[in-house]
Amino acid sequence: MSQSEQPGVIMAGEMAEQPAVLARILAEGAASIRETAAAIAARHPRFVLLSARGTSDNAALYAKYLLEIRRGMPCGLASMSTITAYGARQDLSDVLVITVSQSGGSPDLVASARAAREAGALTLAVTNSPDSPLAAVCEFHIDVLAGPEKALPATKTYTATLLALYLFVEGLGGGDGAAAAGLPGLAERVLARGDEVRELAARYRFAERMVITSRGYGYPTAKEAALKLMETSYIPALSYSGADLLHGPLAMVDNISPVIAVVPDGKGGEVLRPVLERLRGRGADLFVVGPAAEVAAASAGFVLPTEGVAEEVQPVLEILPLQLLAYEVTIARGQDPDAPRALAKVTETR
Amino acid sequence: MSQSEQPGVIMAGEMAEQPAVLARILAEGAASIRETAAAIAARHPRFVLLSARGTSDNAALYAKYLLEIRRGMPCGLASMSTITAYGARQDLSDVLVITVSQSGGSPDLVASARAAREAGALTLAVTNSPDSPLAAVCEFHIDVLAGPEKALPATKTYTATLLALYLFVEGLGGGDGAAAAGLPGLAERVLARGDEVRELAARYRFAERMVITSRGYGYPTAKEAALKLMETSYIPALSYSGADLLHGPLAMVDNISPVIAVVPDGKGGEVLRPVLERLRGRGADLFVVGPAAEVAAASAGFVLPTEGVAEEVQPVLEILPLQLLAYEVTIARGQDPDAPRALAKVTETR
Repeated sequence: MSQSEQPGVIMAGEMAEQPAVLARILAEGAASIRETAAAIAARHPRFVLLSARGTSDNAALYAKYLLEIRRGMPCGLASMSTITAYGARQDLSDVLVITVSQSGGSPDLVASARAAREAGALTLAVTNSPDSPLAAVCEFHIDVLAGPEKALPATKTYTATLLALYLFVEGLGGGDGAAAAGLPGLAERVLARGDEVRELAARYRFAERMVITSRGYGYPTAKEAALKLMETSYIPALSYSGADLLHGPLAMVDNISPVIAVVPDGKGGEVLRPVLERLRGRGADLFVVGPAAEVAAASAGFVLPTEGVAEEVQPVLEILPLQLLAYEVTIARGQDPDAPRALAKVTETR
Repeated sequence: MSQSEQPGVIMAGEMAEQPAVLARILAEGAASIRETAAAIAARHPRFVLLSARGTSDNAALYAKYLLEIRRGMPCGLASMSTITAYGARQDLSDVLVITVSQSGGSPDLVASARAAREAGALTLAVTNSPDSPLAAVCEFHIDVLAGPEKALPATKTYTATLLALYLFVEGLGGGDGAAAAGLPGLAERVLARGDEVRELAARYRFAERMVITSRGYGYPTAKEAALKLMETSYIPALSYSGADLLHGPLAMVDNISPVIAVVPDGKGGEVLRPVLERLRGRGADLFVVGPAAEVAAASAGFVLPTEGVAEEVQPVLEILPLQLLAYEVTIARGQDPDAPRALAKVTETR
């Protein structure tokens, strides 16, 4: 069933492409994303609905934080089945509906984007496939320029989509997204530390479950890291916002349940700190991805070069060591990250 | 640490109260909920944001389906940290912000409701505590009339909140929620089958993980069942909409991973069917809560009396056998459902 001679070679190659993809978006995509954003801003949407599944849904959640915090626009994540299964008819005038999908091919996403446009919404597709049905059905399109993605676990399309959405949301406010300029170089530095992650991965060789938590801008990273771990290594990985973790699932965390915390360098990290205290108090094995001081206070971790990096673009970096971790844990468990059981690249949900 | 002499006696008592609580809401609460709905409808909100955590967040998700399907109102679940941590300033005129909390006491919910009101939103609190800070800070309040809840895992406040939200959403459209009339009697019939659930619980005595799935109106039930199982038995229970399950986490499901599917009798069940086929094809152990025909095609299950029951009120019944299951699995594992590790009744996230 393996798609490659050597386990994980396809996923490894695509992870390594990420600095180049980010640089390409900044060099070749940014101007067009800004134009799209200006055209949409001129139509004055009041409310934003985001529609996506899987990895793209985690990118959409990042956009929700950006839109609410940076633009003050109320946002929701669409529950697609209300339209595709129940035929809900909504008044979507003044509403911007953003559909995020790397393939642009899932029938339910195409159907719900079409229904949204018919209901009066401004529609924007964010895909890695400019010729896709989804791009055709939406009024506006942003190409995330990641190039063909062949590994089943999405990696470079995730970070490419994050950056494209960041530039779009900044563009809605007339900004040029200058805070993203350093990302390709920083991503390169993080991805060069594969050996460090390989050593850290050994501790999860026999893990039977994991809990991944964060708050604010880091929360989409926690969700995406959990998805990546599950779809490659099959370790049940539960992700919670730090606040929700205290409302029940904390009962499940003890000294044999490893916890990964994504600690943003900024407000998200500040409000996560009391949750980390509670976790340490319960004797949890705490692995931190974040600034050096937070890593030093944990059982283990990966120090992110966040100094001088605006909190809102840190998610593009945060996910990189966690993609590497999912990859290395899977290899350590004798499985092939390129060929997860049961995954198809275009998911044919209807 | 146990709060009761006999393990689980408090939770068992509160589960058993549910038919009476539902009857009380219909008899004593419905008129006032209808009045509140009419007053809010007269102000013509265009969008709805729902704010909640934990069990209440699952009730809020149910309201999102109702609002979108029954009222055609675009909806979002609020990311509270955008306001409480990042100080996002949103224009919330024309927006109805519904904050759901059994205690009405969580500081972050109170803060975000206050911020929403200051930003021009219509604010509604749905609580089990009319004298709570949350009720005081919102313009409108609905009391779910569940009576004091002492067990840490919330049960009767969940079903009470579902029913109150159903009556509210129907009231927004001038409806009287007549479809809910049979719920107290049906709930009584379901809860009388505790022995059946006790036998079914034996199969999860040694489970190391569970996957719970549904679609449409049943999806909030899947999330709440997962939360209930985790906070009582500490079994890592992962919940996914059927569509999202196909986007990755399916890789994790095999013949040793039990799957619970909540199958609504209606459109949600129809669109879930292809997912159930995929699960059966992977040899998953499939436990179904739903109509008899679906249970018959599964490894095991609990037949819900859904005949003639509108799909939109079925969630009030669906969760009952799953609350019982969480309780029975916890007892079978020698733990006390009344005293989960680490849970506090009012969660002091800020």
